[in-house]
Amino acid sequence: MSCVPEQSFQAGSPRVLVAGATGFAGALAAHLLWRHPRFELAAITGRSDVGERLDDLYPRYRVPLRLQELDTDELGEIDAAVVAYPHAAAAPTVGALLEREVRVVDLSADFRLSDLPTYERYYGAHPRSDLLDRAVYGLTELHRERIPQAAIVANPGCYPTASVLGLAPLARAGLIADLVIDAKQGLSGAGRAATWQTHFSNSGENILPYNIVHHRHTPEIEEQLAALGADLRVQFTPHLVPLDQGELVNCYVTPTRPVEQDELDVMYEDAYAGEPFVEISSTPSEVRDVRETNVCRVHVAASEHTGKLVVLSAIDNLWKGTSSQAVQNLNLMYGYHETDGLL
Amino acid sequence: MSCVPEQSFQAGSPRVLVAGATGFAGALAAHLLWRHPRFELAAITGRSDVGERLDDLYPRYRVPLRLQELDTDELGEIDAAVVAYPHAAAAPTVGALLEREVRVVDLSADFRLSDLPTYERYYGAHPRSDLLDRAVYGLTELHRERIPQAAIVANPGCYPTASVLGLAPLARAGLIADLVIDAKQGLSGAGRAATWQTHFSNSGENILPYNIVHHRHTPEIEEQLAALGADLRVQFTPHLVPLDQGELVNCYVTPTRPVEQDELDVMYEDAYAGEPFVEISSTPSEVRDVRETNVCRVHVAASEHTGKLVVLSAIDNLWKGTSSQAVQNLNLMYGYHETDGLL
Amino acid sequence: MSCVPEQSFQAGSPRVLVAGATGFAGALAAHLLWRHPRFELAAITGRSDVGERLDDLYPRYRVPLRLQELDTDELGEIDAAVVAYPHAAAAPTVGALLEREVRVVDLSADFRLSDLPTYERYYGAHPRSDLLDRAVYGLTELHRERIPQAAIVANPGCYPTASVLGLAPLARAGLIADLVIDAKQGLSGAGRAATWQTHFSNSGENILPYNIVHHRHTPEIEEQLAALGADLRVQFTPHLVPLDQGELVNCYVTPTRPVEQDELDVMYEDAYAGEPFVEISSTPSEVRDVRETNVCRVHVAASEHTGKLVVLSAIDNLWKGTSSQAVQNLNLMYGYHETDGLL
Amino acid sequence: MSCVPEQSFQAGSPRVLVAGATGFAGALAAHLLWRHPRFELAAITGRSDVGERLDDLYPRYRVPLRLQELDTDELGEIDAAVVAYPHAAAAPTVGALLEREVRVVDLSADFRLSDLPTYERYYGAHPRSDLLDRAVYGLTELHRERIPQAAIVANPGCYPTASVLGLAPLARAGLIADLVIDAKQGLSGAGRAATWQTHFSNSGENILPYNIVHHRHTPEIEEQLAALGADLRVQFTPHLVPLDQGELVNCYVTPTRPVEQDELDVMYEDAYAGEPFVEISSTPSEVRDVRETNVCRVHVAASEHTGKLVVLSAIDNLWKGTSSQAVQNLNLMYGYHETDGLL
Repeated sequence: MSCVPEQSFQAGSPRVLVAGATGFAGALAAHLLWRHPRFELAAITGRSDVGERLDDLYPRYRVPLRLQELDTDELGEIDAAVVAYPHAAAAPTVGALLEREVRVVDLSADFRLSDLPTYERYYGAHPRSDLLDRAVYGLTELHRERIPQAAIVANPGCYPTASVLGLAPLARAGLIADLVIDAKQGLSGAGRAATWQTHFSNSGENILPYNIVHHRHTPEIEEQLAALGADLRVQFTPHLVPLDQGELVNCYVTPTRPVEQDELDVMYEDAYAGEPFVEISSTPSEVRDVRETNVCRVHVAASEHTGKLVVLSAIDNLWKGTSSQAVQNLNLMYGYHETDGLL
Repeated sequence: MSCVPEQSFQAGSPRVLVAGATGFAGALAAHLLWRHPRFELAAITGRSDVGERLDDLYPRYRVPLRLQELDTDELGEIDAAVVAYPHAAAAPTVGALLEREVRVVDLSADFRLSDLPTYERYYGAHPRSDLLDRAVYGLTELHRERIPQAAIVANPGCYPTASVLGLAPLARAGLIADLVIDAKQGLSGAGRAATWQTHFSNSGENILPYNIVHHRHTPEIEEQLAALGADLRVQFTPHLVPLDQGELVNCYVTPTRPVEQDELDVMYEDAYAGEPFVEISSTPSEVRDVRETNVCRVHVAASEHTGKLVVLSAIDNLWKGTSSQAVQNLNLMYGYHETDGLL
Repeated sequence: MSCVPEQSFQAGSPRVLVAGATGFAGALAAHLLWRHPRFELAAITGRSDVGERLDDLYPRYRVPLRLQELDTDELGEIDAAVVAYPHAAAAPTVGALLEREVRVVDLSADFRLSDLPTYERYYGAHPRSDLLDRAVYGLTELHRERIPQAAIVANPGCYPTASVLGLAPLARAGLIADLVIDAKQGLSGAGRAATWQTHFSNSGENILPYNIVHHRHTPEIEEQLAALGADLRVQFTPHLVPLDQGELVNCYVTPTRPVEQDELDVMYEDAYAGEPFVEISSTPSEVRDVRETNVCRVHVAASEHTGKLVVLSAIDNLWKGTSSQAVQNLNLMYGYHETDGLL
Repeated sequence: MSCVPEQSFQAGSPRVLVAGATGFAGALAAHLLWRHPRFELAAITGRSDVGERLDDLYPRYRVPLRLQELDTDELGEIDAAVVAYPHAAAAPTVGALLEREVRVVDLSADFRLSDLPTYERYYGAHPRSDLLDRAVYGLTELHRERIPQAAIVANPGCYPTASVLGLAPLARAGLIADLVIDAKQGLSGAGRAATWQTHFSNSGENILPYNIVHHRHTPEIEEQLAALGADLRVQFTPHLVPLDQGELVNCYVTPTRPVEQDELDVMYEDAYAGEPFVEISSTPSEVRDVRETNVCRVHVAASEHTGKLVVLSAIDNLWKGTSSQAVQNLNLMYGYHETDGLL
């Protein structure tokens, strides 16, 4: 009568909590962990809908657990948590979990920026800036060596994930003189709240540019690129386009010196050789090709006409852009194969 | 700097109010009247957003008027009104307007059903049942002779519009023994309220059946068919499908006697000869063909295999299903050509 | 550099061929078998695109094999085949494979109808009617006992899959007096051929009824219902709606005697208790809930108003409607759990 | 029985031919001319479907004429023509029409580029380069003074229309130092041909970048900007997104000197004051707001963070991007109001 698979983790597997499982990100994290061979999804909590079953809210995810209220004083045995709260709401909860020795992958922006003044300019006062130095930025492919020991993994924003993976080879090579990023994303990126923006009659047959000169993911991209050697201000402009899951980020790079296609091809193949979740595509990346996967698909082209470099980076905003990357990080934190539960 | 056409009605044209212009139906009525050669759009009112310009809420309709609060004591010179309120809220306003000698096209369900107990079973207590006998059902093609004199024109529901136009020839001929109606409509049919139902991430890539055995348009269809001679209970089931404007109604008729395709073709051509807004199509009706028109496009087929008759009736739910039919009725009420402002 | 999982079947696993892997159905079958723990995807063939890699044609399926030409004289070691050819083209190939002792799941219509005159009325001359008695109809839940021994499993059409699963309890109980089926499906159901029908500018913002009184799946539904005890002619009308994968079938049943909701609920729960891939839903079935799963999600309602029974049956037309059901059948044919590779 | 309006042009109106009326552009031009108060749609021709009625091919346009074969020797009385042929096929036909003293609005690229070598680099040999100096580039708002006398009006490409209207004020002011254009368009922009690209199952739930570093509209944009004073190479990258009609062009300008928002606002208001079809929007332009209109809706923002200027320019690619701009040009050529037939 039901196609719900039983959880089949091994005895003694880490017990994971998903806090905030009613939103798109938390619900998908719960789905991925429920099916994961090496983690036990021990509990799901919500700030609303307590007592409801998750498979009533999200039938397609088929997680037959009930939402609880989060009480960090009565956690029971929990080893790790995925926290899917809005910024500012996340940090205090993350702090409370750390005190109970729960390791956290935090999906909010609270621990992504290491520079506190930048955080406060974009998000307001930080509720737990004392914890900033316990966090590692969770763009797995770039911070693989530090994630295993982290108490807090600050899971990246979806736009920074696609942008930084697409640009890292150029940033490391010191090739980025100027940068424009034009990003397009499906409506799931706007979250589960019902608004005029997400109303089908508004978002269908439309293209919705938003925050065109001041999006909050801008400083996150800039900080990551700076760490790779490209210290510059980024023009970042996002749009919602009429699809559900999928994100394409176009990076238009004015290089510091002329770069030919051949050099680019080698640079990208080398940079991502052996990466299980980054594909270098010989044709322009399409979001359909990464839907419901943890893959980032990158295409890069040098324009003979303008000398500019065009990088296309496609991900599923809910998967690699959010929840499956959280699981990728959990895998690393517990010494499993990065791909466990994600292929 | 703007493509807004000036209103170019003739001096002395009737002055029309649209009450409830913030919703989809009222806004479109305002748009159609603003461009109409024979009516003056004198004022628009809203139960929210008072003081806002309609072209800020609906840029594409380009109506540069501000929303006012409706005060029936301070109407100024108004000859007619389109009332776009929810049921139960509409009737008292309609009553107040009638007292000021304003003729009304009411888009709600309040005056569509002549049988009060039926109304109350589906909608609750009727706030102004005393006015029921002043209303004429505004399915223009069927009640053309009574609409010109009406104080209240009860504009039909979108599903009844498509269903009854599609079935009228069979009903009149006494041919309907049993009837199943399966209806599909775009998301604009769910109204402007932002809900999980209308969220793109829910309604996109989905088909949403709703009220599958007890939709409120059922008694309206039944009452109209009964008036045409087909007194039966109708199985009516609607769905939302991922498009914005458009409605396809499939009527599956078990006939009272065998009917051949040739007879059907003649019956429908005869029934709608000369109708400016009903098209008999030799191919299955598609909603794209009627988008943003006042046209109802009907296709009819007799199945040799089952003996059943299949009628496909396509309209734009916001146009012929609501607001352009209201204008068609206004044209009739003031003695204009039915097609004025609608071609 | 790639997220392609290696095939990880056990040594000695059955070697499976997919013939016709360039179409939607064959490509998905290849994808499912490539990831299957108990089958080896040994080869893929195509009637076009020979030499191409499947992950160039379908990047999202990530099957890194090249398409070969099918030569049944030079098969190598193949134990089973999924044949994804059009009707009439399939049967001769199925015959040639049987001669080489290859067991076949055939996705075409060639072996679905046991009554040859019916086949020929809808599809023309049958190229291998001599093989009809070696075929078992592969609606897994209904023919589970015969599939393990079958030489040919005739995989059902997508509409019959959803319809018959939705109606089987009523058919067995002798409750179907009259039946109208109104079906809606995404564009993937129209196949991979680029036509005006499948052009986004035609199919987007539209609803496309087709073959409204003479669709080829009608006799297949009728034959299956007759075998269950409901021998009647079915009014079946399909539509394409603007989504990719997903199918909703509405069955409107006039029952042979009054049926209450409680009786229905018990009947359906009992009928599908223990079925891993049939869900009885207490809310109307939505196609989003079954996307990319082998699940058929059924909702049933008795109308107090009309006495009719309304059954909603949702599947993914490419998965349970085609390719994942083929894998479900292969699992049965080789004695594996039905759910292997499908959860 | 039909909602087709009779043509109601005045006696003696110019008689217009549409050549190539089977494609999206020609069919829409025919639709607009059929309803135009000052032109007579005298004939429509096609390179296919000769003898078919246009309202069978495009029911929604409701043009009840039959497609003829184009015979420039037997034209009858034709004053003007809209030629909707592919590049290279258009020029010879335009030439033949000119010989018969027919004025032409040409929708192809053949007469858009005044620099022959540039044309030949992007399109191959020019069949009638002798006619280049008889053509005027038909971006109406920029070449209004020369269009009335033109023998050939080279109707602009859709991307150049949106781009150049969006950038003209900056180009004239000498403010463009560097320029990246990222353009998004609906599937109608890919034309009526059924291809894998336009298949709903490919283009739905996807974003399709194409010709990312060498699109043919690049030189057209560059030539127009140069004429306005901005002589530079433009990085232009287009995409198809899952909608039908609509185009959003984002221009990222590195200015030659710092520019503040206030200066921008005044510059754009001034530049387009009095233009009936250019709207300056205080919120980011959305394609839904210009659908099925001749309007170009422009929003401009100066980034305090990067110093870059972001211009968003939205049009309907088939209307202002193609066919309604052709009618706007015809209006000018015959001394009518530019807005006739377009509001």
